[in-house]
Amino acid sequence: MAMVKNNTHITLGRAWNILRSAIRMLPAEDCPVRLCAGRSLAEDVLSLRNVPHYNASAMDGYAVSSESTAGATPSSPVVLEQGQFSWLNTGGVLPGAFDSVVMEEEASLAGDGSCLSVIKSLVAGENVRPIGEDVFRGQVLARAGEAVTPAAASLFATAGIPSVRVLPRPRSMYVPTGDEIIPMTDWLETEQPPAGRVGESNSLLVAGYFVRWGFPVDVAPCLPDDPEVLSSFLKEKAGEYDLILVGAGSAKGEKDHTFRVFERHGEPLFRWLLMKPGRPASAALLGGSVVVNLPGFPMSNAVILWSVVYPILQLLQRGNFDDATVVQEALGADGGEQVSLLGPHSSTPGREEWLRLKCVEIDGVKRAYPLPSGAGSLWALAETDALSLLPVESAELTRGTTVFTWFVRPVPWKERILFQGSNDPAMERLPTFVRRYGGDLVLRSVGSLAGLAALSRRECHTAAAHLLNPESGEYNTSFIEGLFQDPEEIVRLVLFFREQGLITKSGNPKRILGVEDLVREDVRIVNRQSGAGTRVLLDALLAEAGIPTDSIRGYGNLSPTHFESANRVALGFADAALGIKSVADALGLGFVPIAEEPFELVYPKEYARLKGVAALLDSLLDEDWRAVVSGMGGYRWP
Amino acid sequence: MAMVKNNTHITLGRAWNILRSAIRMLPAEDCPVRLCAGRSLAEDVLSLRNVPHYNASAMDGYAVSSESTAGATPSSPVVLEQGQFSWLNTGGVLPGAFDSVVMEEEASLAGDGSCLSVIKSLVAGENVRPIGEDVFRGQVLARAGEAVTPAAASLFATAGIPSVRVLPRPRSMYVPTGDEIIPMTDWLETEQPPAGRVGESNSLLVAGYFVRWGFPVDVAPCLPDDPEVLSSFLKEKAGEYDLILVGAGSAKGEKDHTFRVFERHGEPLFRWLLMKPGRPASAALLGGSVVVNLPGFPMSNAVILWSVVYPILQLLQRGNFDDATVVQEALGADGGEQVSLLGPHSSTPGREEWLRLKCVEIDGVKRAYPLPSGAGSLWALAETDALSLLPVESAELTRGTTVFTWFVRPVPWKERILFQGSNDPAMERLPTFVRRYGGDLVLRSVGSLAGLAALSRRECHTAAAHLLNPESGEYNTSFIEGLFQDPEEIVRLVLFFREQGLITKSGNPKRILGVEDLVREDVRIVNRQSGAGTRVLLDALLAEAGIPTDSIRGYGNLSPTHFESANRVALGFADAALGIKSVADALGLGFVPIAEEPFELVYPKEYARLKGVAALLDSLLDEDWRAVVSGMGGYRWP
Repeated sequence: MAMVKNNTHITLGRAWNILRSAIRMLPAEDCPVRLCAGRSLAEDVLSLRNVPHYNASAMDGYAVSSESTAGATPSSPVVLEQGQFSWLNTGGVLPGAFDSVVMEEEASLAGDGSCLSVIKSLVAGENVRPIGEDVFRGQVLARAGEAVTPAAASLFATAGIPSVRVLPRPRSMYVPTGDEIIPMTDWLETEQPPAGRVGESNSLLVAGYFVRWGFPVDVAPCLPDDPEVLSSFLKEKAGEYDLILVGAGSAKGEKDHTFRVFERHGEPLFRWLLMKPGRPASAALLGGSVVVNLPGFPMSNAVILWSVVYPILQLLQRGNFDDATVVQEALGADGGEQVSLLGPHSSTPGREEWLRLKCVEIDGVKRAYPLPSGAGSLWALAETDALSLLPVESAELTRGTTVFTWFVRPVPWKERILFQGSNDPAMERLPTFVRRYGGDLVLRSVGSLAGLAALSRRECHTAAAHLLNPESGEYNTSFIEGLFQDPEEIVRLVLFFREQGLITKSGNPKRILGVEDLVREDVRIVNRQSGAGTRVLLDALLAEAGIPTDSIRGYGNLSPTHFESANRVALGFADAALGIKSVADALGLGFVPIAEEPFELVYPKEYARLKGVAALLDSLLDEDWRAVVSGMGGYRWP
Repeated sequence: MAMVKNNTHITLGRAWNILRSAIRMLPAEDCPVRLCAGRSLAEDVLSLRNVPHYNASAMDGYAVSSESTAGATPSSPVVLEQGQFSWLNTGGVLPGAFDSVVMEEEASLAGDGSCLSVIKSLVAGENVRPIGEDVFRGQVLARAGEAVTPAAASLFATAGIPSVRVLPRPRSMYVPTGDEIIPMTDWLETEQPPAGRVGESNSLLVAGYFVRWGFPVDVAPCLPDDPEVLSSFLKEKAGEYDLILVGAGSAKGEKDHTFRVFERHGEPLFRWLLMKPGRPASAALLGGSVVVNLPGFPMSNAVILWSVVYPILQLLQRGNFDDATVVQEALGADGGEQVSLLGPHSSTPGREEWLRLKCVEIDGVKRAYPLPSGAGSLWALAETDALSLLPVESAELTRGTTVFTWFVRPVPWKERILFQGSNDPAMERLPTFVRRYGGDLVLRSVGSLAGLAALSRRECHTAAAHLLNPESGEYNTSFIEGLFQDPEEIVRLVLFFREQGLITKSGNPKRILGVEDLVREDVRIVNRQSGAGTRVLLDALLAEAGIPTDSIRGYGNLSPTHFESANRVALGFADAALGIKSVADALGLGFVPIAEEPFELVYPKEYARLKGVAALLDSLLDEDWRAVVSGMGGYRWP
């Protein structure tokens, strides 16, 4: 069936309206009271019984007739004979002949039990929990739309209600597809997965969100990239499930045979969203099911889960959703807030764009920086504290722009500090230890100079640098003096010395022995970004040797971390890189030592009062961290 | 074993310290990655693989050697021969001979596929997702203490991690006890439960909270009130469970054989809390388990669940908890706030006291009134919006006092309006319909006069009254003029007329035909509270007949609602009550008509703009509500 015109390349808001008019609410269902806690009521719940269902004593005491106690006081007690009173425990049944209970403390029984002195005059019903006192038969106990609390569930059972009508939980299935996909169990058992194949892991993303939302989901076995197989699978399952999510293979998200199957057998609803990531999503009605094509890249998959799949579940369950709050609900976000960006971000006009943000509070202001934006970066999604959906008309966001974000997990605002500065693997092991001392350390590798500059603008709590001044031979001082108005207010702390050198292929097959060899025609390097301490060092070494930088192949080929440059050497994309020994060791590469440099931590004195900085300072002395670092190679303690 | 001295009759804070020093944390456990979403990590998670694990094409295009493209531009393309390029889908494996990928759009293949024109000069690694780009082997993916998000679970699987170390979920069991308890299944199947027996329903309260907290709990069959049976049960289960909760029978919460069993076989920790409700709780260590005695009354049971059991679960799982936040966490409360009381409350000094509050926003201020405080009232617990723990030193709280509360469920602040006023069963059916129109109506029966007075103090949004002025024969006007500075600002709306009369036992065995009969010696009445419209009517009728009120038996015996007074007649605690026909009909009682009165809704004009008031006005015209009311008897539409 052909799709309604203009339902391709649409905004999320338009997709919601299309879904809203196409998807019908499922009927309510019965739920045994034993399982109803947490469910949403489809109808008012009326009590089937009086609670209590008999006149019960409200305390330990004697059942009596109130009239028989008329005039009783402590100074002139009334004495009741056998047959005029009867002992009751709390909750005991008030005998029909009596209408009240005298407290144990206000009566005394004769030694032989023959008579009872009562020192208080009672009124009818006193100390009795009469039938229906807590709840009467027919009373409304809870109303349609409410979620059943533990207390309500217990109350329903007490009121004799065996089951309640609740909003349905749509039956959903996730179907991974793709020839390149290895089922998760096999993937986890494989020692060396073959190149070109990837493990099925999006089902964990899907199942994780469904569990959060309180909806069940089945995961089907992985299907091959075969329209015929998918067609017959969907036709078979459409009757069993209300919602079927077809996941594309993670590397082939934009192959479109899934949508062609939707078109051939169902009623297409929309295709292509003006959204980044998440663009290749589509949806249709097919044989009584709603079917959705989830893009394969993890971030795209997640975006469609919370912005399309959750609204569909709401339509199936409740018949509607609120545009203003549905994404917040889907994200499980505890409200939203404006945060101020720690760096610029370029957005693509004409598309809504999801930003993944890492958040921190600096000087009382909530700030955030964007994590890598690739749809394939599962790591960035896992690191995300908050999400922001930039509107279609966004373009260049400058540093300090505020954006509205939803927090997707608790941010430890008071414990967290942000480090911006030089990249170092020993530093990267530190957050685990900082946490032991009650802090939370977030590391952002931006290079030594950018780190100091960020610190001078109060865009982080601490930085680290190893910036050589080639003229003085001194590290960092001239840079700090240039950036900070009052360098006295800055604490400087040498964490360790580390060995810098030339990282080469294993065994150094091209015999690269010093910077002089970098000019050779058969040598290609990978460099670090401008402002990185390692780049400053390379430039100083080249200047000293009188080598012009444009004579070096790959000088303009940049990597942001030691690991990435070493990795490019390991992968054969370059022959050499200036970098530290620990990374060469970790990747089994060759290493030609060149210099030992101090790695200095820097922070404003006033931040020493912060919980996070205190924990950082404690963790620097932690023996376990020092042992880890010593094992990495190329580090020396001051 | 004897308990440490001074561990009885203690505050909650002291109980926490005793538990903290007695309970040891359980060891961490392995969790398959498939099930780890939502669990808390006990250790850092390090990647076992590089992601991607091979050099993958980042797009659809041709693998080439970057050197072979040197100098290529749109105006002077480089032409590559067979063997110098190879087609790759996104995610395809970069062959070893190549180091970059040229985008499909920047190359054109000859018709016979023999050669490829490239219009861009590439650098090594361009358009390639190199091994380890997203995550490298050994990289810390998540840290001890973090909760596993769906994205993290998916990332772990991608990184080849089959299972992770997580904090344990203590194995817990709930054991209902009590001779009077009927197992829940039997209770729900019984048509007429026997007097003196109650259904087991606390297990739903326990299980509901455990599910919320993400902890499993088994429910044991109900045990009799027999110390020997309990002893051998606990000794058998102590090895299997980390935590055993012994629930007292709901009506015998303070019988103490459970604690004697704890003393005989275990190491008692504490007994009796200075807390209301919840006082009869106790705890002990017994054969490797922590055992807790939960009081039987539902509210007491719930209080001990969130204030003692949840902290114990935290100790077993994490080794500690934060006194400042543990109750909030246990309640699932989204923070706390100060609210201002709508009425006075007397607290017992020397005990901490839990207040159950119903909340509403009036004129921009968050306000609350206490629900009935009985430990046995499950209805009040189910109705609760917020909880407040009054400190030991609290005594008389006056109207307007602010108390700190935790919200235990979302309060619809913007939709909710509070009604205070006359009690009426037709009004009681209205909230269901108000909700259909987007509002939320909370009813508080305080009587006609108290309702108008509350409205004049802006302590509710609307009131209803049927106050007869015996001199003028008019209803409400004189009262409204006396209470409101500008009665013109008040909207008055007659909802319906209702029949008032004498409610008697079924068949009117004592032949009570008018107020004259109420003076008879064999007639006992139940009256309504002062300020209730029905009380005003009774007093007017008596005055007219020249009957002094002190000549009437039961005149001082008060009930706050029509249902309660009629119920007292039904139960034989009184012979007659003035009340409305619908209640007499509902309980099958006799009814002698005396007067028809208007039931008037009253609200300030300016509140008409409120969502809740608009919905209330809409619902008054709802045909379904009118049909319900018409079926109740004794109502006439104006």
